[in-house]
Amino acid sequence: MLSNNQRKQIVLLAQKKHREQQRLFVAEGEKIVMELLQAGFTSTSLFSCTVFPEIDTVLIDLPTMKKITHLKNPSPILGVFQYPEVRIAPSEDPIIALDSIRDPGNLGTIIRLCDWFGLSQLVCSESTVDCFNPKVIQASMGSIARVNCQYVNLESYLSQSEKKVYGAALGGSSLYKESLETNSIMIFGNESHGISEHLFPLIDKNIAIPRFRKGSVPESLNVATATSIFLSELFRTNNTAV
Amino acid sequence: MLSNNQRKQIVLLAQKKHREQQRLFVAEGEKIVMELLQAGFTSTSLFSCTVFPEIDTVLIDLPTMKKITHLKNPSPILGVFQYPEVRIAPSEDPIIALDSIRDPGNLGTIIRLCDWFGLSQLVCSESTVDCFNPKVIQASMGSIARVNCQYVNLESYLSQSEKKVYGAALGGSSLYKESLETNSIMIFGNESHGISEHLFPLIDKNIAIPRFRKGSVPESLNVATATSIFLSELFRTNNTAV
Repeated sequence: MLSNNQRKQIVLLAQKKHREQQRLFVAEGEKIVMELLQAGFTSTSLFSCTVFPEIDTVLIDLPTMKKITHLKNPSPILGVFQYPEVRIAPSEDPIIALDSIRDPGNLGTIIRLCDWFGLSQLVCSESTVDCFNPKVIQASMGSIARVNCQYVNLESYLSQSEKKVYGAALGGSSLYKESLETNSIMIFGNESHGISEHLFPLIDKNIAIPRFRKGSVPESLNVATATSIFLSELFRTNNTAV
Repeated sequence: MLSNNQRKQIVLLAQKKHREQQRLFVAEGEKIVMELLQAGFTSTSLFSCTVFPEIDTVLIDLPTMKKITHLKNPSPILGVFQYPEVRIAPSEDPIIALDSIRDPGNLGTIIRLCDWFGLSQLVCSESTVDCFNPKVIQASMGSIARVNCQYVNLESYLSQSEKKVYGAALGGSSLYKESLETNSIMIFGNESHGISEHLFPLIDKNIAIPRFRKGSVPESLNVATATSIFLSELFRTNNTAV
């Protein structure tokens, strides 16, 4: 049984304001819900259209699921979860810092990438899309369970850090020719405007992915694909894969 | 002035069936429309809400644009374009082949990547999402103007090719340890199911991107980020950037 109050609460959680007030978010899909539970996230309620033998869910029918889903096509399971404690430990790991990333698909894909490369934290400017946005949760494919997103004032964060700061910028030094330090922060800027000007003085070196097409087009790469190429280079040259 | 017939036609072009019947597609946004025109695509009509000094457009108001746009938020310009001639020249360039990629954002992002790495063709299985889908056009950010998408029966295509065939697959040899040939085809599989089983016998070698997190998660990377890492490695080791 889903009460009217529960239905209203779940629908409201599509909005950041309500998520932050209640410190709750919604995750849908078997894979994502299971990975959150396995990672120790606390669910306040779990609803499903079919029986999941390993977990206790409240059974509801598909028309009811359609009323509460945040997706176009409802999945068989939906959970309401508490915000995790943000566990940020100082570490020698490289840090990806995002400046005003607006597309939830891009943020979710970057969270999935961080997970692949074993990074357990991701630093986001306050203007970056909320990591508990339903589309971010979806695109992260469960990786949100293992990657902490820390929202900060990037300017203060960078000023206080002792790590080397790289900026991903067209016109920077070639990624393939630089020896990137792993004890570093790599900043990726907004999809349309790149890195904010007020952060420029805090960047030690700009790095670019070389373009192989002659001429002046295309202007740029998608930010998630650019992040993947940087992470691949950083780990290829510095680490040992498991 | 936008006639009723034009309005109906443009709305219908959101569907693949109608695009294929009419061999027409819709592109929106200044950057994308301009790049298509510069690349020699033929527009049958151009509508805009503001004056673009370099081109002739039919001026319409925003409420009219909202009636014909295929996007959530209309852009100031919308063009109807003829399908290009598919110009496939045999070439020594590496070829990316997509097997049943379903997400239009992924296909658009991969088209943009091919453009960045100077590849002018992309091979897609017939089950791959249509490259003239409005969301693909949008995600390609104009690169659809410079990358030919060729839809083929992948099984016959691979059987007839003399190039080396690589498959992107978990459990393959490490991308970082293999010397990839450039005169090759690299296959990327469906977002959920990977490469189709009937193609396995046609693959010379499976290649994997090493995972740097210990354990069994995450299971995979997003297909566009995986493609970007493969292309970066292939070009880094074999080519000279412009």
